[in-house]
Amino acid sequence: MAKRRIGEFELIARYFAPLARGFAGARGLKSDNAFLAADARHDLVVKTDTIVAGVHFLADEKPELVAARALRVCLSDLAAGGATPYAYQLSLSLTLDWTERWVAGFARGLAADQRRFGIALSGGDTTGTPGPTTVTIAAFGRVARGKGLGRDGARAGDELWVTGTIGDAALGLLAARGELKAPALEKRYRLPQPRTAFGPRLVGIASATADISDGLLADAGHIADASRLSVHIERDLVPLSAEARRILAAKPALWSNVLGGGDDYELAIAVPPRKGARLLAASRATGVKVTRIGGFAKGRGVVLTVAGHARRAAQTGYVHF
Amino acid sequence: MAKRRIGEFELIARYFAPLARGFAGARGLKSDNAFLAADARHDLVVKTDTIVAGVHFLADEKPELVAARALRVCLSDLAAGGATPYAYQLSLSLTLDWTERWVAGFARGLAADQRRFGIALSGGDTTGTPGPTTVTIAAFGRVARGKGLGRDGARAGDELWVTGTIGDAALGLLAARGELKAPALEKRYRLPQPRTAFGPRLVGIASATADISDGLLADAGHIADASRLSVHIERDLVPLSAEARRILAAKPALWSNVLGGGDDYELAIAVPPRKGARLLAASRATGVKVTRIGGFAKGRGVVLTVAGHARRAAQTGYVHF
Repeated sequence: MAKRRIGEFELIARYFAPLARGFAGARGLKSDNAFLAADARHDLVVKTDTIVAGVHFLADEKPELVAARALRVCLSDLAAGGATPYAYQLSLSLTLDWTERWVAGFARGLAADQRRFGIALSGGDTTGTPGPTTVTIAAFGRVARGKGLGRDGARAGDELWVTGTIGDAALGLLAARGELKAPALEKRYRLPQPRTAFGPRLVGIASATADISDGLLADAGHIADASRLSVHIERDLVPLSAEARRILAAKPALWSNVLGGGDDYELAIAVPPRKGARLLAASRATGVKVTRIGGFAKGRGVVLTVAGHARRAAQTGYVHF
Repeated sequence: MAKRRIGEFELIARYFAPLARGFAGARGLKSDNAFLAADARHDLVVKTDTIVAGVHFLADEKPELVAARALRVCLSDLAAGGATPYAYQLSLSLTLDWTERWVAGFARGLAADQRRFGIALSGGDTTGTPGPTTVTIAAFGRVARGKGLGRDGARAGDELWVTGTIGDAALGLLAARGELKAPALEKRYRLPQPRTAFGPRLVGIASATADISDGLLADAGHIADASRLSVHIERDLVPLSAEARRILAAKPALWSNVLGGGDDYELAIAVPPRKGARLLAASRATGVKVTRIGGFAKGRGVVLTVAGHARRAAQTGYVHF
């Protein structure tokens, strides 16, 4: 029996228009276009990301978490760019058997993150697909004019710092698959915590940044490549959570997951040594821990030092397809 | 035998980075973020649209035409908003059996339209999907601060005008399905021609606008609904191409396709009578024909007049899912 469902206009009015209420330029989602006021002191920073059920999230994941993941992977990139987020566009492709219950949960997830991160829905598109649920977010942030941070810009002699702890998400993925017992890390994998408050403080301090979404070695390598440098990382300086430390003590082979796995959504930051004190001040002001784990030099590639022995590391990270 | 294909970074470098070459804020697509310079005199206008193979375009459609359609449906909305387009983000979800040949054709289609419309790729995402090829475009335009046009804003007494000719795409769809012989109209269906030069001229003239993507009755109805008015349309004033006129003479039943079918990507425009002369001047300046086909009044709904007999029309348009 075919289930009667609400149509596109009702769906938007019921679930998505409330998410745009505080954002005048969205015009209540009754306009096809969104209007974003601009000013001459800022650049608009845009990040687009698509997540597909069964590829980037588990097909039976809670819709609240799907919404949070879709938003947060973009907010993480904006943070790496030094930008403060303020709005986003949503394109939602629903499977043929979509349910209103799923959409309601998805909208609840968006609403919670809008409050948490101070952002609003500005527009988008909803459509049906014979394929899996697919969510594309284009997130908008602001950064002082010309000051946006990117992967290029590191100089030889810059230090490599990271925020938070590394590898929790990769171990959390193993936990989600039932291969490890680590509920706290599993949550870390399922619900990224983008560094939205800390990222904008890096403007004027960092020479280059990347968020750690593909894995520490890969993302540090991306900064090095874009800056035409090499990067070295001392493994024993890499900050670990107590739980990750315990797991690695029992299974040292999992170091490859910690250094090569993705989804941490911490920041990798190139900082000139003379600006280290300002970085630490930003860390204290926001309560975000930062750790120096290596540095940049002339040459190319990623060099990993373990117990005093340096070796060239493969920049294997998450492969998108 | 598994075919070795290029990876994501190579794909971007080979096919998409060239499309971003003229746009400094794209940083050669090596940055996760795009940086759009803003100024205080303009609003940024954003339109997001997703098209799915087998839903919004034929699965075996030429990739050049898929690219053009994805871009142009967004440019059409920007034109209705009064905005001049200048950049876009692309999210491309490729099927598991994607070929480089397809991507090369898709990129050629984007490049051709970038030249035609004066826009550049500013960033985006590429990913794999077990479902159909899915393309999301977020297109960016500029409009004078606070002057962006939308569906709301029409007043009782405003006239309803349309650009170009109506119904060609709906008849072209029948031709594409082999139900009619009308090659020129089939092309019109496959390759929308957004009114990007004319739309920005409507700022200061139009009180409300919509592009005709869902169908004339539906989109005129959307303006009426958003403006809390009724709209009446005189069928015999609706501008037709010579080919559409010939087809309708033979099969008058196809009037329902002409008035109810979508994909024309013309503009429906509410204009106060005192501004009719300025509208005609804009028409002459751009060579875009405009035709007055009705007007707005108090009340609600869509009234269609045929040979002097008025009747309430159903606002059926394209149903998105």
